[in-house]
Formats: sequence, C-alpha cells, structure tokens
Amino acid sequence: MVLDPPLAHPLIGRLTVIGVGLIGSSILRAARARGLAGTLVAYDGSEAVRARVLALDIADCVAETPAQAVDGADIIILCVPVGAMGAVAQAIAPHVKAGAIVSDVGSVKGAVVSALRAHLPANVHIVPGHPVAGTEYSGPDAGFATLFKNRWSILTPPEGADEGAVSRLSALWSAMGANVETMTPEHHDLVLAITSHVPHLIAYNIVGTAADLEAVTQSEVIKYSAGGFRDFTRIAASDPTMWRDVFLNNREAVIEVLGRFTEDLIALQRAIRWAEGDKLFDLFTRTRAIRRSIIEIGQETAAPDFGRSHD
Amino acid sequence: MVLDPPLAHPLIGRLTVIGVGLIGSSILRAARARGLAGTLVAYDGSEAVRARVLALDIADCVAETPAQAVDGADIIILCVPVGAMGAVAQAIAPHVKAGAIVSDVGSVKGAVVSALRAHLPANVHIVPGHPVAGTEYSGPDAGFATLFKNRWSILTPPEGADEGAVSRLSALWSAMGANVETMTPEHHDLVLAITSHVPHLIAYNIVGTAADLEAVTQSEVIKYSAGGFRDFTRIAASDPTMWRDVFLNNREAVIEVLGRFTEDLIALQRAIRWAEGDKLFDLFTRTRAIRRSIIEIGQETAAPDFGRSHD
Repeated sequence: MVLDPPLAHPLIGRLTVIGVGLIGSSILRAARARGLAGTLVAYDGSEAVRARVLALDIADCVAETPAQAVDGADIIILCVPVGAMGAVAQAIAPHVKAGAIVSDVGSVKGAVVSALRAHLPANVHIVPGHPVAGTEYSGPDAGFATLFKNRWSILTPPEGADEGAVSRLSALWSAMGANVETMTPEHHDLVLAITSHVPHLIAYNIVGTAADLEAVTQSEVIKYSAGGFRDFTRIAASDPTMWRDVFLNNREAVIEVLGRFTEDLIALQRAIRWAEGDKLFDLFTRTRAIRRSIIEIGQETAAPDFGRSHD
Repeated sequence: MVLDPPLAHPLIGRLTVIGVGLIGSSILRAARARGLAGTLVAYDGSEAVRARVLALDIADCVAETPAQAVDGADIIILCVPVGAMGAVAQAIAPHVKAGAIVSDVGSVKGAVVSALRAHLPANVHIVPGHPVAGTEYSGPDAGFATLFKNRWSILTPPEGADEGAVSRLSALWSAMGANVETMTPEHHDLVLAITSHVPHLIAYNIVGTAADLEAVTQSEVIKYSAGGFRDFTRIAASDPTMWRDVFLNNREAVIEVLGRFTEDLIALQRAIRWAEGDKLFDLFTRTRAIRRSIIEIGQETAAPDFGRSHD
C-alpha cells in the first residue's frame, strides 16, 4: 500500500528535521512523497549521517549547523534521543523565528516538555509529539515513507498552547498517514510505559537472562529460539541510546508499571508452584481476546507468526 | 519455499497421528506431501475435529477409536496436550504392536517420559520428541506442510533406547524438513524453559497486567500497541490448554528460570531508579548481538518488524 498522492499545494513553507535516524528520515520521505513542505531541511549532529542524507537525497537542503537548519523554518521537529532534547533546544533557541512550531518525536513527553521550555523563547509554539511507530532498525537508511500510515501520533500540547499551532502540526501528521490524538504528557507517559517502555525492558531483560544461563549454551538459545524467544529479540535489538534515555526520563511511570508486572508474575509463579491450573487457564484465555482486538483495528497482522515465511 | 519432492518409497508402513491440532495436522500434511508413509492414520478425541480431518482430506484413514488408530501402526505420534499424554498412552497400550515406536510432540519431556512409561508395554519403543516450531493458531486447519522446515526437532530417547528406533524416527523428522538433535529430557526441559516456556509466561503476564491497569483504558492499550506491546500478544494468543499443561509439567525448570528473570529485572529496575545509564546501555547493546546470530542461522527473518506490511 502507498501513501495518498501529493498535495497540489504544500501545507508548510519550510519544514526542518533535526536528527535523521529511523523516524527523522521517515518524516523526510513521507513529507517529500506527499509534497507537504515548500522546502525540506535536514540536520544531524553526525557528519557521516549528513553525508548519507545528501547521498539518499531525502531533503532539499542539508544544513551544516543547528542555527542554519532552523533559519526561517515554520515547523521544526526534533528527532533525537530524549536525553539530547535539552542540548538541541539550547542550540537552536536563538535562531528559531517567532511563531514557529517546535515539536519532537520522543517516546517520553513530560521530560521533553521541561527540556524544551527551559531553553526556547516564549514566542515559539512548543507542541511535543510522539508517533507510535517504528522498527528495530536505526539510522537514515532504515526509514520509509509509509512508516506512520495507520499508526497513531500523539500530541501533548502544554496547557494554553496555541490552537492554530496544534492544528497545523496535526494536519502534518495526518497528511503523513497517521491518526492524531491529543493527551497530557503525564497520561502519555503512563500509557506508553505499559504499551512500549516496559515491554521493551522485559524483552531486553529476558534476552540478558538467557545469555547468562550457565547450564544452557548461547548456541542452544539461538537454535531453539523459534519456540517463542526470538519474538522478544526483535525489540531487544532496538537502539540502545534511545532506549537508555527513555528509561532514565520516564522513571516513575516505568517503575510503577514494572511493580505491577512483577507482582502479577509472582502470583503466576505461585499458581505454577501450587499447580493451580485454572488460574493459568483463565489468564491464557483472557489474553487471546486482546490480540483479536488489536488485529481488528488494523494495528497487527492476522497472518500466523507475524507473516514470517515458513521455509 | 517448498518441501523436497516425494520419496520413491515410503519410509514407514503405517504412521498414526493422535491429536490433530496445529502440529498433528502439519505432520500429516508434511508426510503426505513427501510420501513418507504407506498409510497415514489420524485420530482425535473430538468428533468435530475428526470430521474436519476427513473434510480436509489430510489422512488416508480417520480412526473412530484410539485402539483402531494404532492397530498395525509402525510409528505412533501423540500430538495432544502434555497433560493428556498419560490417558492416551493408557488407551492405546493394549493395542500397540510389538516393536512399534511411540513418540510425541509435547513441549515438556521429563513428565511425558514418565507418563508414557507408566502405561506402555516393554516391547514398544518409547522415543519422545519435540519439534520446536509452531504458530499462535490452533486446530486442524492451522497446520501446513512446511511448518518443520529448517526448525529443530529434539528427540529425548531414554537411556538404553533402541538405536534403530531412534534413527527411524530421526529419519522421519529429517524427511519433513527438520534438523534433529538428541538430548536428555532434563536438559530439554531447561533449554525450553528459557527459549519458550518463560517467554510465553511473561508475554501472557504483560498482557494481563496491561488489561488490569485502571488508569489506562483497554482501548488505549490496543490503539498504541505498535510501540512494542503487540509483539507480546502473538504468543499470548497461543492455546490455553496446551500452555497450562506445559507450566504444570515443567514446574521446576520454569520456576528456576523465572527466579533468574525476576532477579535480573529487579536489578534493571534499580538501575533505572538510580539513573545508572551505563548499565542499561551495556545490556541493550549486548542483546542486539543475540538477534543477529538468530538471523544468521536462519531462525528469524532480517526484514524490519518481522516483515509486517507497513500500510
């Protein structure tokens, strides 16, 4: 499936993406494919990435400095790890034009709101965002124009945010194929703790536990991974810097949800120890229904085994 | 990819499959596709399943009783939940011919060895097995002939098992496309605890924890599941009876591995609480390498997001 055809007129004059990894490069590709901006500007702190963006030809202009990148931009989207948001905001702050929108794609919103507010002037519209989409791959080559199609993009405008700014940003995400929702940063951080952050943490954790078992060799773990383990290795292959920053910046919600997860797991362990088969069966039946709902609303494939080829 | 072409001569005279779910029906299909048995016999305790097997035409003969199913069979493979193995062994015991091989496909081996030994006569070869393959779907319609292709099938012959019997069963699995390994039931149960059983348990658990969070609605969990959560729902949609029996019958190894998992998780939680970013980064880097190895040996796809279509 492809995106809708390009618009007759761009939505935005100048769109700047800072940080050209999986998400940043997907925004550039989607905006280019749909003709959403008069000029697409890209900047990345890494010289190698800037060279790669030029080679991939996914922006109209690759800036050499943050100041140059945001000069005259109408919308600026920061696509850097959550822990780097403050430094980037500080670097661009003197150069952002009055009335511009500064947004981001970080997986944590409370900490990002604080980091942006600390540095950006009052005449700039801060409208943080988070497209709930991605793959386990990183870098400018990993992106693709349809990444946001049929996925949700969550905006967390601070209280009193300019409604016009919020709707311009919302229109941009819609035009890239996303469904847009608005919520508070606090609620976002709790929702994502359960739907994304804690799942990543337990995936990283089980892969680590497996690697450390003395009685089972690494080669056995790898050979017999089709029994379920390999499903966890996908998200445990995600970008380490991005995920370190997520956990350091969404500490409270992650620890709260982790506490509940561990409590539930210990109750299950007790049910196994005491051979309470009915408790296990009840949970295992209940969880099936949730997957059915995820498939029904088009957030998952119904193909067996995620549609992996069986050969 | 497809299986190799049919053999000129069948490997086995009469092959009986008892329990025609995902695995049993895949064995029938693979054996039929490759011409591995002179006669393929199927039996299932459910009348509806027997009717479905007839309609699907995946066996030469659908028996009406366990006794009829095993009559004259050279190899009998029990494809029922682990908790049902004892009862099935008891039902077929008086009717199995001397020298026949009785095997199974249960995900736990120690408990199955005991259950089969308790009922089957000494003149029958007991060679338990476990193909490490499957999908989240169940029932006779879910099977397919290439399910075992490039997967490992583990045999756990008891000490003193007849070598000829082991190699005949091994040849059958190889002919269905599987790689065959032999190990003790105890080692199997520990290896599978980490590569399959505990991953399933924590997947079921996180889905349950998510469903129970009061502050996050079920519809939010479902909408934003593309952030990682949905990966877990696949194995948490697996057959509840089968998995209840796995946990009840591999209690010790599961509790041992779960203990390590929880210990590691609590250490990670502490690292988050104390903002020890380096510890998180180190683990998140180490786990990437394991996925690469799984992809390298062909046990996983390298396609982003398991190859799900992005539309």
